[in-house]
This record gives sequence, C-alpha cells and structure tokens, in this order.
Amino acid sequence: MTQQGTLGVAVIGTGKMGADHVRRINEVISGARVAAVVDIDEARAKAVADTADGCQAFTDPAAAMAAPGVDAVLIASPGPAHEAALLSAFERDLPVLCEKPLTPDSASALRVLEAEQKLGHRRVQVGFMRRYDTEFMKLKALLAGGELGRPLLLHCRHRNASVHSYFTNEMMITDSVVHEMDQSRWLLEQEIAAVTVLKPTPSSLSPEPLSDPQLVVFETTGGAIVNVEIFATCGFGYQVQAEAVCERGTARVGDAHGMLVNRPGTWGGEIAPDFVARFEEAYDREVQAWVNATRRGEVEGPSTWDGYAATAVSEAGVRAQATGERTIVEMIERPAFYS
Amino acid sequence: MTQQGTLGVAVIGTGKMGADHVRRINEVISGARVAAVVDIDEARAKAVADTADGCQAFTDPAAAMAAPGVDAVLIASPGPAHEAALLSAFERDLPVLCEKPLTPDSASALRVLEAEQKLGHRRVQVGFMRRYDTEFMKLKALLAGGELGRPLLLHCRHRNASVHSYFTNEMMITDSVVHEMDQSRWLLEQEIAAVTVLKPTPSSLSPEPLSDPQLVVFETTGGAIVNVEIFATCGFGYQVQAEAVCERGTARVGDAHGMLVNRPGTWGGEIAPDFVARFEEAYDREVQAWVNATRRGEVEGPSTWDGYAATAVSEAGVRAQATGERTIVEMIERPAFYS
Amino acid sequence: MTQQGTLGVAVIGTGKMGADHVRRINEVISGARVAAVVDIDEARAKAVADTADGCQAFTDPAAAMAAPGVDAVLIASPGPAHEAALLSAFERDLPVLCEKPLTPDSASALRVLEAEQKLGHRRVQVGFMRRYDTEFMKLKALLAGGELGRPLLLHCRHRNASVHSYFTNEMMITDSVVHEMDQSRWLLEQEIAAVTVLKPTPSSLSPEPLSDPQLVVFETTGGAIVNVEIFATCGFGYQVQAEAVCERGTARVGDAHGMLVNRPGTWGGEIAPDFVARFEEAYDREVQAWVNATRRGEVEGPSTWDGYAATAVSEAGVRAQATGERTIVEMIERPAFYS
Amino acid sequence: MTQQGTLGVAVIGTGKMGADHVRRINEVISGARVAAVVDIDEARAKAVADTADGCQAFTDPAAAMAAPGVDAVLIASPGPAHEAALLSAFERDLPVLCEKPLTPDSASALRVLEAEQKLGHRRVQVGFMRRYDTEFMKLKALLAGGELGRPLLLHCRHRNASVHSYFTNEMMITDSVVHEMDQSRWLLEQEIAAVTVLKPTPSSLSPEPLSDPQLVVFETTGGAIVNVEIFATCGFGYQVQAEAVCERGTARVGDAHGMLVNRPGTWGGEIAPDFVARFEEAYDREVQAWVNATRRGEVEGPSTWDGYAATAVSEAGVRAQATGERTIVEMIERPAFYS
Repeated sequence: MTQQGTLGVAVIGTGKMGADHVRRINEVISGARVAAVVDIDEARAKAVADTADGCQAFTDPAAAMAAPGVDAVLIASPGPAHEAALLSAFERDLPVLCEKPLTPDSASALRVLEAEQKLGHRRVQVGFMRRYDTEFMKLKALLAGGELGRPLLLHCRHRNASVHSYFTNEMMITDSVVHEMDQSRWLLEQEIAAVTVLKPTPSSLSPEPLSDPQLVVFETTGGAIVNVEIFATCGFGYQVQAEAVCERGTARVGDAHGMLVNRPGTWGGEIAPDFVARFEEAYDREVQAWVNATRRGEVEGPSTWDGYAATAVSEAGVRAQATGERTIVEMIERPAFYS
Repeated sequence: MTQQGTLGVAVIGTGKMGADHVRRINEVISGARVAAVVDIDEARAKAVADTADGCQAFTDPAAAMAAPGVDAVLIASPGPAHEAALLSAFERDLPVLCEKPLTPDSASALRVLEAEQKLGHRRVQVGFMRRYDTEFMKLKALLAGGELGRPLLLHCRHRNASVHSYFTNEMMITDSVVHEMDQSRWLLEQEIAAVTVLKPTPSSLSPEPLSDPQLVVFETTGGAIVNVEIFATCGFGYQVQAEAVCERGTARVGDAHGMLVNRPGTWGGEIAPDFVARFEEAYDREVQAWVNATRRGEVEGPSTWDGYAATAVSEAGVRAQATGERTIVEMIERPAFYS
Repeated sequence: MTQQGTLGVAVIGTGKMGADHVRRINEVISGARVAAVVDIDEARAKAVADTADGCQAFTDPAAAMAAPGVDAVLIASPGPAHEAALLSAFERDLPVLCEKPLTPDSASALRVLEAEQKLGHRRVQVGFMRRYDTEFMKLKALLAGGELGRPLLLHCRHRNASVHSYFTNEMMITDSVVHEMDQSRWLLEQEIAAVTVLKPTPSSLSPEPLSDPQLVVFETTGGAIVNVEIFATCGFGYQVQAEAVCERGTARVGDAHGMLVNRPGTWGGEIAPDFVARFEEAYDREVQAWVNATRRGEVEGPSTWDGYAATAVSEAGVRAQATGERTIVEMIERPAFYS
Repeated sequence: MTQQGTLGVAVIGTGKMGADHVRRINEVISGARVAAVVDIDEARAKAVADTADGCQAFTDPAAAMAAPGVDAVLIASPGPAHEAALLSAFERDLPVLCEKPLTPDSASALRVLEAEQKLGHRRVQVGFMRRYDTEFMKLKALLAGGELGRPLLLHCRHRNASVHSYFTNEMMITDSVVHEMDQSRWLLEQEIAAVTVLKPTPSSLSPEPLSDPQLVVFETTGGAIVNVEIFATCGFGYQVQAEAVCERGTARVGDAHGMLVNRPGTWGGEIAPDFVARFEEAYDREVQAWVNATRRGEVEGPSTWDGYAATAVSEAGVRAQATGERTIVEMIERPAFYS
C-alpha cells in the first residue's frame, strides 16, 4: 500500500511536552504537519500555531478535531483532560497518540477501553516512549528471540537529578515508576500481579514531603520478580537502566556510554541531565512510528489496554507505598479485542 | 524566518546509497519529498520513483533538475559523474547535497570550486556524514570548547568486516581513509600537510590484491600527528574509533556500547556489521540538516572546499601508499570565499 | 616494632580450601610456614604435609596445636568441626584464621563468642575474603570517606556458573548470601534487622531441589535496604557485583573488566569461571594480613562478632526463605569487648 | 623437586626502587629474606638493613655478595653501576634479578652477554615487570594461543602524569618507551628492525627541554608495525594501554577499570597516579617468580639477551628521535645460548 498524503495532526496541549511534539512534527519527522493546536491558554496556543504553516489555534479540543485538514490527534494535555479528549476523538474516529498516563485512574481508563471497543477497531497508541529507545528495542528483541531463555528477574534503576517542588511520593509511582510498569509488561509479556514498596530512611537531601529513594518490587503473573530503584532527587543526573536475568544469561541496557574522557585523576563519560536528552531519539521514533502506521491505516504500539494496565498497577503501587504492604493488582480480564 | 514549503528533491543515482536516501526522505525526515529520481538504468529509476507520490523518473540529471517541483539536488551517483551533475545544478542555482567524494581527482574538484565561486554564493554540502554522528559531534564540541587544550595527536581506527572483490589498495585511501581525512581537518581545524603510509606484512586473510591492514600517518599544518589504522577486511565487524590526545586530557569515541550481555564465559556487546548500521542516524541527521538549512535559504556543513581538500589529500595518500615515502600534500591557497 | 620470626601455622582441614591455603603459605605469602596439617583422612594429611619442609601430619587438631613450632591455627575444616577446633585453640591461646562460617548455628557461635571474651583478648579473624578484594576495599574506602553521603540502597548480584549436586536451597543462604550479609554489615557499618526472600518461578535449568534464582532483601538497623540476587546455577560464570546508592552518588564494583577482545560480531571480555579465579588475590591478601598482624601480636579483620552476626542473619534468612515472610533477625546486644 | 630453604638476597641500591623491593621481600612474598643491602650512602643502607632481621649493610656490592647467607642478588642501583655488579655476581655464580636497563648502552650489554655465556648457564632475569602484569599476561596468552591469528599492528599508549625536572627527551625513549620495546618483542616474538620518531608541536604544558608527546613507530623483523604514544607529562595520571590487531580480531588491555562511580554529571573511574600504583602487583609477581625459580635452581623470565635487545633498540630510538629519520636497529645475531 502506498503512503497517503501528509497527515494533519491536532496537538492538544502546548505545554513543554506538547510544544516539543509540535517542533518534532515541524522539523524532525516525515509525513505529518501540525494542522491545529489546542490550549486553554489561548495566547500560548497562538504562539505555538505560528511556528507551523497553516496551523490554527483552538481552546477547545473538539473544535480542533472538527477543523479542516485534521486527520489525527496527539494528546499532550494534563492527565485529567485525557478522557474527554479521547472520547471526542473516538466520536470522529480519529487516530490518537496519547501521552502517558492514558487517564489518571483505572475507572476512567476502563471507560476509554470500553468506548474504543465500541468503535470496533483500535484507535489509540499510548506514549510509552521507552519502547522506541534503541537499547530497549535491542533488549526486547534479544528476550523475544529466546536465546537467553525465560526472564526470571528484572533489575531496574530510574534516577532523576531533581524534581519540581510540587512532586509527591505518589508521583514517584504514577509519574516515574509507571514507565517501569509498562516496560516490565512489554519486556516480559506478562501482567503485574502484586506490588510492594520498600522505603529506606530517606536521603537527607530528599526534599519534603518525599521519601526518596524507594525500592519497588513487582511480582508478575508468570512468576518473574522485578525490582525498581526510583531515586527522584539523586543529584547526579538522569539514568535509566535495566538488566534482565534469564535462564541462560543476562542482558543490561542503559549504562552511560558514548564519549570517554580522561581528565585529571578520572576517566569516564557524562550522565544525561534529564529525560529529554536521554530519550530524545526515542520520542522522534515514537511519533514517526505513529505517523507511519496512521498513514497506512493501521494502529500499532502500546494500546489502550497497556494504558489501562499501567494505571491499574499504579493504583496498587500507590496503595502499597502508603501501607507498606504487598498489594494485589486488581484488573479486569483482558478483552479479546486487545489480544 | 518561518519555514518554506516542502522541499522537492531530485535524487541523482538510485544505487544502494541513492535508494537509501530516497527512503530516508520518504519515511524518516521532515520537510522534503522526492520530486525526481535519475539513473542511467531507466527501470531502476522507475522502480524507485514508484515509492514516492508524484515522483518522476529520469535518465538525464539535467532534465530532472529542470522538472517542475524540483528545488534541490542530492547527488548519489558514482564519483566520476559528480562534476557534470554539480555543474548542471549550478546552472540552475540549485542547492546540492553531494555524496563524497566531491569528485574523483583534485583537478575536477578545482573546477567545481571555481564554478561555485562564480555563482557568488555557496551551494554545496558534501556528504561527510561523520560530522553528524552524535559521538563525533560531542568530540568536536569538547575540542572546540577548549577545556582539554590544543589537540596534539589523533589516533583513529577504521575497520570493515569485509569488502567487495573489486576493492583496491587505492580505495583503502580514497574510499575509506578519506573519512579520516575530513574528520581530522574538521576536528583539528587544520589542513593536512603530509601523508605517510606504513604497510605491515598483510594478513593472510587479506584478499588479493589488497595489502591489508595499513597504518596511515598525517602531519597537519598546526603540527598535530594523526595515525589511522585502516583494516578493510578485519572480519569481526565495522568499527570507527578516534581518540584526541590534548594538552590537558584525552577524549575517545566509537567504543562499542549499548546493550551488554552475559553469555557463557563472556560479557560484552555486539559490533555493528557495517557502516549503514553504525551511521544510520548520522545519515538521517545529515540529510535533515541539509533540508532544514536549504528551506531557510542557507548552506551549511562540509563545503566544496572540504571536498576539494579531501580529494587533494587522497591523491597524496595514494602516492604515499605506492612509494612508501612521506608525501607532501599539494593544495591551492584557501579562497577567502570559503573562509 | 620489628617483625618476629616466621609464623608456624597448623592448617586444620586439607580439602580444597585447606590445601589451597597450604599452597598459599608455601609459595605465595611472606612470613609464615606450614608447621602442621590435620585431616581425619590421614593419607591426605600426609600427602599435603609432604609439600612443606618440616611439616607434620595429624588427625587430631588438638595434637597438632600442641606440636612444636606451631604458633597459629588456620581452620579450613567443615563448619560443624569449627567450634571444637576454636575452643582447642583458645585453650592454648593461639591466634586463629577461621574460614567462614564461624560455626553452623548461632547457639554454637555464641559459645565461641563467650569463650573468646573469657580469654580477655581477641584471637579470631573470620575468613570473609571479600573485605580483602581490591575493588571492595575501594568501595569501602569511598563510602567511609563520606564524599557520597550516607548509603541508602545496596544492590548486590551473586552468580555461580553451577553448583554441586548436594547444594540445597538453605545453602543458597548459608553458603552464598552469607557473603553479602557480611559485606553489607561491613560496607554500611550497620546490623541487619530483617530478611525477606522472594522466589521467582525457578529457571527450567535449575536442578532439583533448588528454587533458583532468588532475590533476598535485607533491612538494616540504620534504615538502608539491600537486595541480593543469588543465582546459583546461572551457567555463564561467576559474578559478584555491588552498587551502593548514596545521597550524592553511586559506586559500583564487580563489572567484568580487564582485557577487551573483538571477535566476529562481538566485543567484550571473559567472565571468571569460579570464586577461586575471581578472588584469588583477595585470599592471598587475607592470609598475608593475618600473618602480618599475628607476627605483630595483633588481631584484625572480621571478628568473632562478625562471624556470629553472619550466622544469626543466615538463620533468619533460612526461615524467611521457608516461610516467604519478612523475618526479624534475633541477635544479642553487641558486647563492649567487640566494639 | 621440593623447595630449598629461604633464599638470602643481597639488594644492591636502596633508593626508591631498591627500598621497595626490600619491603616486598620482607612483607609480601614468600621464600626469601633480605640478607644484605648495599648503598654508597652508608647511613641509608643501614636504615634499610634495620627493617629486616639479620640483614647487614654494605657500601661495596662485591663485599655484600661475599657475605654469609647471600644466595642471590637483586640489582636496583642506577644503570651505570649495573655492569660491575653483574660481573661481580657472575664471579660468584649468583643468580641475579637486574632492574631495567640491563646496562645503559649496547656495548656494555654485549660484555655482560658474553660474560654470562662464559659461565655456561643463564644467571640473569631482567626487570621488565609488565611481563608479570595480569592483563598483559592474558594478552600474551591469547596471542600465543593463536585464536586471533598473526598480530599485524600493535597500538600502544604510555602516559605519565608528570616527570622530574631532570627528565630529558632521550629518557622518553630509554626510560619510558624501553618498556614498549620489550613488550613488543615479548608479545610479537619478533625483533625490532627499525625505529621512527614523530614529534608533533609540543604541548604548551610540556616542560623545557621536552618535546612532549611523541609518536614512536617500530617495524619488526616479522613485518608488524607498532606505534607508541609516549606522553610524559599528560597531567591526568598514569596509563599504559596496548591493542594487538590480528588477522581474526583485536585484543586491548589497560583501559582503566575497577570501581565505577556516578558523580554529578559524570560516570567513570579513577586513573592510577603512577606506575607504582598501576604495576604494584606485577612487581610482587615478578620478584616472587624470580625467588621461586631461583629456589628450584632455574632461571626464567626476560634474559640478558632481552636486556641487550632493549638497549640496542633504545639506541636506535634516540638516534631516530634526534634525526627525525627512520633508523635501522643494529644488533648482533642472537646467540644459540639464548634461543
């Protein structure tokens, strides 16, 4: 099948992430153009619209989706606004790339799941960009190839240099560890059955009210054990690492790499300052993959089910964090629609 | 300045490299489309043209450049065809991305240099893609920043798993080491003044008529010494490494990196099979940078002067290889136009 | 204080470990000689005695300790024989290097602890050789120096290629993880307060009756969290790694290192086949440190208290492994004698 | 054959290196004791003698060698004193460990070579300690095993943080690169046939009268090419690296390794400050190997021929450095005695 014409995208939300996606569609990837942008801050929407030829600014997502030339929707607004935007897109049967989280809680995620099933075909790709990172793709391919046997343990590290003052303990789960939830489900091809959160005495540099770092343990339906160090204010940079321990070997991604420098007394390399620097190319690849699949009339990548599952596991994680107890993850049966 | 419309590109040559650039413009990068393709093999040109909407096939470069919708030219034909294609593009004042080498010899490169100067503005970006590789860009930035002081030595490794049966000793210089010639000029911001080639007893696996590997030494106008191991048939994969030794430290790029695997008895990672795998993203970035600059009405990146210089140094390298002697590089003075 | 004469050592037990210590004293380290060897297998004792000048063979430890020229005792017999040998040595007030475990259970360890206190001075160094490994010594020095702040988490990996057919689940704790118990106490300078053992679905290559691998979690009295992957039959080699996550940075030891080789398709290094290859120099350094301190009339290194603590934590670990529950470690108060 | 009694060693020279060897024999290695020390500074000799039981101080090497209890000689005096000390040892037929250089020039080395041949058996091990470094031993074993095929190129780096004020250009060859001369001969099992020295514009931090760094190229009798970066004042630490490029792969030793630390913005490890820290264990192993062989009545390791060859190549290197020309190495035929 040959490629259709350039895809006209309505970008919902023009904050840091939305504006970056507009830049990406304008300047980096192929086959799409920004046809409309939406923000409740009209001035900001107009300023971003001015960066793209023939792009209109809106304050209402539904109005943007109805505009001429809009073929698809990229949702980058705050999580609480996602459900309404998704349902509007479904009304017009528009394909959607929805930034994580799908929605902030599993009840709303379930409503989206049901609405998409009523459409009769998948429409949503959820923005778990690690699935598009070169190293994680290699790890996935190695595990899927079977050479190393079944994965038994997954050791994960997730370190941020620092966080905004409004960052909470709950966000350590819902905003940060949610990536490892999706990553574990994707790499292991299993659901997460239970979550436990262990909290060491916090770092004296940990800002109130955080208890930082924490060690989060997942048990999967296939009997694998995952542990995640989440360190939101480690101070030294942004690091995401994972090692899969399998029956016949292990594989590790995310060690710092690239240029090695000898300086007085030390050799080594730089640590990425933040997720933008670390995952820039993964975001490019993610949006390009969405545009390419959409132009072919297909939907690929993390599904609404993946978005729902991450939300359900996050809820269990937040409870586990609060109670200190091992907490069972409650999820509906996976609909055949998403198998 | 806002971006102009999508750039219509005529791709000259639809061999391996040309076809890959067509795919890149079609599917990977932003802001361009393939408006025309040219090949002396008409069937091949047509097959490639069919992969892009509204793309016409030609057998004559000048005819393609005259076609409607053609705003720019990407030359990926064999080196001997470059001069004519470049001069045709100059007649229409079209911006050009020309794969290396600019031309096969310095006499023809000089003619191109003079023709571009007569136009009164730069039109050519030469395809030295290493300048767009993430690691080499970091090395360049580190050296340019001055933290490590002046570069004194540059150790380079250039290893191919294997070569085609038509590969010659001369091509070890003109096709392979030419990359280190440009890389050294770019990183050190100096011209190459002399070349010496040392040949160890060849590997018993070295195919006739190659003397493989070789050690090529450059002396630069600023007194730096560069050594390049060129190993065209190393057997184990494709590796490009460089270490700059400076007054206050050293910096190295090109160590294998990424995913680490423990397998029975060994830990380690994979070596890229070839330059396509190793430099895929550098090619993407190179063509994107050309498209972006062209749409802004600008010319950036390696210039015709850089193409001429690489050719002149290659000629000295081939003589040095044949004679075993230290060979002075002969070049004209750098025109102010290119300073 | 100048060095005394050469130390005459009675080596108790001439199995694999004991015979290796005899070789070490004979051929590698300075200041000691093997004066007596003991084994219940008289022929084996005689064969080993023949490797050292003036060395006598015995079947009874007490008789060996009474022999002329015996100044010190190295206990390398099976764990159940340690208590009697230690008490015999205390009767003669001889300095002892006792291989781990100090004794197989905490009740017997307590008896040894009390007997040593009655002597009025320390006599025992316990054989936790990781404290003498170059990399672990560097990690200890870095943590003790305070540059990175307080340690918050400790991630440990302990992988064996394979185990003997008599190896049990309990031995995964008492024989293997006991090293991480001592290592954690030493690095963090805290006691272990609780142990939890998580068991993934075992590897299909895991030999009966092992449930392999396991993830063991320690909580320390200072609020640090330690996790230990113990993989007794990982197949690919012997690996011991540790990463301390501190307030201002992290530090990791035990990555494979040394010679890097490019082979077809892969770069990397070798993994040590077993603990003998990995810790050979640590054993040399351990025994040399014991000889040097003994000749100076001093006792250093891991104490009887450290041996008792490791045994008490092991007991909790075995219970935690059996029950799947978080298990509190029960220990007496640390006597002032060992502070 | 069983070991003889403890070896009584006369250490000639009690400067930095001699005093360190005395400490090594006293405290680190097995089977030897320091029976005598010699220094023209009598007070220094006495101070060092006091560190070992029953050790006598001398100012005359021959007198020390005649003292009771002296079974072997370790020469660590300045190079110009080596010839006389070696010949004295030969008169008494004593085994010798002679620090490099064997002698300062090839004429004197030839006299030693002839004198040893007249004895009718080898008596000398020359102190090229890299042959006892764990990583270099692994590289040697890998090359000797043949898996990678014939070595074609050898890339060497030799970097010092700084040098004493009396360090000269000639010493860059005779004191530093002499290690790579022996290392190349040992690893490749070939003689060095020619030397060329390339001098970049010196570092602005290079102290008068040094031209630092330099690139030294060896051509071997088997047609291999070796290049050595010697950087005497690199400022960042002490680094010795080597990569052998072979027909079927390459192998590299000497990358910094060990503990990895994440600190703000960077990951990496430490660089050894000097050769003492880098090669401490190689020195231990070297002296232990000499003691063990001597007690068995054997002579192993680098021979007088190796010492002569290094001196002859050094002389060619110094000429090459002064003239800027490729310089042929002049050596006698290898006597059958040393084959």
